[in-house]
Amino acid sequence: MAAWLGSAADPGRVHTEGRTARAVVEDAREAVAALLGARPREVVFTSGATESIATAVWGAAERGPHLVVPAVEHSAVRETSALFDVTEVGADGLGRVDPDEVVAAIRPGMTSLVHLQLANHEVATLQPVSEVVAGCHDRGVLVHVDAAAAAGHVPVDFGASGADLLSVSAHKLGGPPGIGALLVRRGLRLRPLLLGGAQERGRRAGLENVAAIAGFGAAARRLRGDAGPPTSHSQLEHEALAARRRTEDVVRAATRLADVVGYGDPVERVPHIVCLGVAGVEAEAVLVGLDRAGIAAHSGSACSSETLEPSPVLAAMGVEAERSLRVSVGWSTTDDDIAAFADAFGPVVDRLRALQG
Amino acid sequence: MAAWLGSAADPGRVHTEGRTARAVVEDAREAVAALLGARPREVVFTSGATESIATAVWGAAERGPHLVVPAVEHSAVRETSALFDVTEVGADGLGRVDPDEVVAAIRPGMTSLVHLQLANHEVATLQPVSEVVAGCHDRGVLVHVDAAAAAGHVPVDFGASGADLLSVSAHKLGGPPGIGALLVRRGLRLRPLLLGGAQERGRRAGLENVAAIAGFGAAARRLRGDAGPPTSHSQLEHEALAARRRTEDVVRAATRLADVVGYGDPVERVPHIVCLGVAGVEAEAVLVGLDRAGIAAHSGSACSSETLEPSPVLAAMGVEAERSLRVSVGWSTTDDDIAAFADAFGPVVDRLRALQG
Repeated sequence: MAAWLGSAADPGRVHTEGRTARAVVEDAREAVAALLGARPREVVFTSGATESIATAVWGAAERGPHLVVPAVEHSAVRETSALFDVTEVGADGLGRVDPDEVVAAIRPGMTSLVHLQLANHEVATLQPVSEVVAGCHDRGVLVHVDAAAAAGHVPVDFGASGADLLSVSAHKLGGPPGIGALLVRRGLRLRPLLLGGAQERGRRAGLENVAAIAGFGAAARRLRGDAGPPTSHSQLEHEALAARRRTEDVVRAATRLADVVGYGDPVERVPHIVCLGVAGVEAEAVLVGLDRAGIAAHSGSACSSETLEPSPVLAAMGVEAERSLRVSVGWSTTDDDIAAFADAFGPVVDRLRALQG
Repeated sequence: MAAWLGSAADPGRVHTEGRTARAVVEDAREAVAALLGARPREVVFTSGATESIATAVWGAAERGPHLVVPAVEHSAVRETSALFDVTEVGADGLGRVDPDEVVAAIRPGMTSLVHLQLANHEVATLQPVSEVVAGCHDRGVLVHVDAAAAAGHVPVDFGASGADLLSVSAHKLGGPPGIGALLVRRGLRLRPLLLGGAQERGRRAGLENVAAIAGFGAAARRLRGDAGPPTSHSQLEHEALAARRRTEDVVRAATRLADVVGYGDPVERVPHIVCLGVAGVEAEAVLVGLDRAGIAAHSGSACSSETLEPSPVLAAMGVEAERSLRVSVGWSTTDDDIAAFADAFGPVVDRLRALQG
C-alpha cells in the first residue's frame, strides 16, 4: 500500500503510470476473487460493505418493489431495504433464520431480492445460505449475502453458494478501511449506484483507490495462501483455529460469573466473535471498566456509531437487549490479551453490581 | 496517514483507541471546512466526489422529479441526474453556462435541484455560480456545485456562495484517493445514500476511513496555511500562480504549431488545466507519443476510464470533439517538465500528421 499512497496514478489512463496501476488493481481483484470463490470479473471494488449493500438493494429493487429481510441483518441491510416494501422474518433463540420462513415470505411477481447474512455480526451464528438460495432460485428471486462478518474468518465460496450478490469489507479481514467489494454473479446486470465513469467495467464509477485495493488484495492473498485450495492449512484456517480457541476462553472466563451468558450458536458460528449477556449492569459501564484495563470491547453493532441503542439482533432472538457486550479477536490478538480480559472482566462486573447494591 | 494505515480504530467506539481516531477525524473536518469556507458540521466525508454527487442527486430528487443540468457538467452529474426528469442547458463557445438560461429551465413545483460546476473539468472555465444560486433561491430550488475540478486550485467559499450542496474529491487537491466530501448547508436535511450507521451524524454510514481522512485534512491544511484568511499568500495561491504560468507556457508552446488551439476561457479559468485542440491527428496517438517522452497527458474526462469517447463538453461548446488533449499540472510539476512537453509536442504532432500524408 505504501508504494501507492503517494501516487495519484489513474488505472484508467493510457500512460505508463496508469498501466502499472491497472496491473496492481487486477492482481488484487484476482486475490479477492480467489479468497471468496468468485471469478475475478465478478468482483466490483467499492468503498466498503455499506456501499456494496446499497448498490445491491437499489440495483435489485428496480426489478420489483418487495424485499425479504431477516430481522437479524445488519442495519445497513435493514435500513436501505426499508426504503422499499419489506417483509421481515424472525430468528430462533440462537439467532438463526428459518429457510422455509424466508422462502414463504416471497411474493411471486413482486419480490426482487432476499437478503441473508452469511454470519451474524453480533452473535456470530452462521446462517443457512444454501437452503435459502435454492428456494429463491426456484422462484426467480435474487439473493444478496452480507458476508462482512464472515469473510476471512470462515471459507466463503461464492460460486458454490449460488448467491447472486455478496458484500464484504476489507477492514474486517485484515485489509484497510475504505475499501470493499460487491460480488455480482456472472451475467447479472444491475444498475450501478455510482454513475459517471467506466471504472469497474461500468459497475462503479469514481477513481480507483489503488493503495487500498492493493491492501485488500494483499490481505486476501495472505489469508488464502498462494498455493493450494482455500481450506488446506491456509492462514485463514490457522487464524480461525486460534480465534475459536481464544473466544472459547473468553466465554469460559466470563460465564464463570453468575448471570453471565454467551449468546448465539456455540458451534455453528464464525470463530472470532462472542456476544455476552451480563445481567444487572449497563454494557456501557462494563466497556469503560474494560477500557481502563486496556481492553477494547464494544456493545451494539459494529456499524453503530455515536449511539448506544438496544440491539435489534438480540431483540429478534428474544433475549434481553440492553445488557450485551461483544468481544472479538483478530490476527494480532495474543493469549496474554485473553488472560488480561479474564483477569479484568470479573472484578469490573462485580464492582458495578456492588455499586448498584 | 501512515500512522493510521495499520490501525482499524473505529472513531465510533468508546474505548481509548476509538476516541483518538475521533479526534483525528474532527481535526481533518475542521481543516477541510476552513479550506472550503464551510462550517465543520457542514462537511460530510464520502468516498469521493462521485459518491458526493450521487448523494446530492438522490437526496434532492426526493423533493421533486425535475433537475436542471448544464451539458458541460461531469458525467457523474449528468448520468446520475439522467435517472430523473432532466432539462439540459447549453454553454457558449468558451464552455460558460448562461445563468438566465439555467434559471429559466426551472419548473415551479417540479424542480428540486439545479447543478452548476464551479469550474469545468476539461476546459477549465469558471462558471457563474453566484448568479445561478441567486436565481434558484428566489424560486426555492436547491443548488449543487461540483467543485471537484476547482477546490484547491481557486479559493472556494461555500458559505458566501449560498450553494446548498458542494462536492469535492481529495485526490484532486493533493490528498489521497478514496476520500472526498459533500458539503451540506446548515439546516438542510437530505436522505443519506448510504444507510445503516450513525457515522457522519447519520449522513453517511460506513466505518470512517481514518487514514484517508487524515490525509485529506493534511492536504487542506497545507493549502490554506494554518494562519490568515485563505487568500493571503497561502500555499494555494503560490501553487495557483505557478500553475497558471506553467499552463500558459504549455498553451504558448503547443499553439506555435499550425492548427493547434486552446479551448475554454483563457482568463476566467482554474489555473492547472488546459485543453488543446489538435487538428488532423487522433488524440490517442498524441498521448502515446507523449508517453514515450515521459509525459502523462490524457484525452476525454478525468473520470472516463477504459473508454475514449468524444467529449460532451466540447460538443456542447460546438467545437471538434475528437481531437482534444487535456494537460494538467500539479504541485509536483517542474519547469523542466514543461520544457520536456514543449520539446516533445511539436515533433510528436508533426510526425503523426506526416504519417497521415
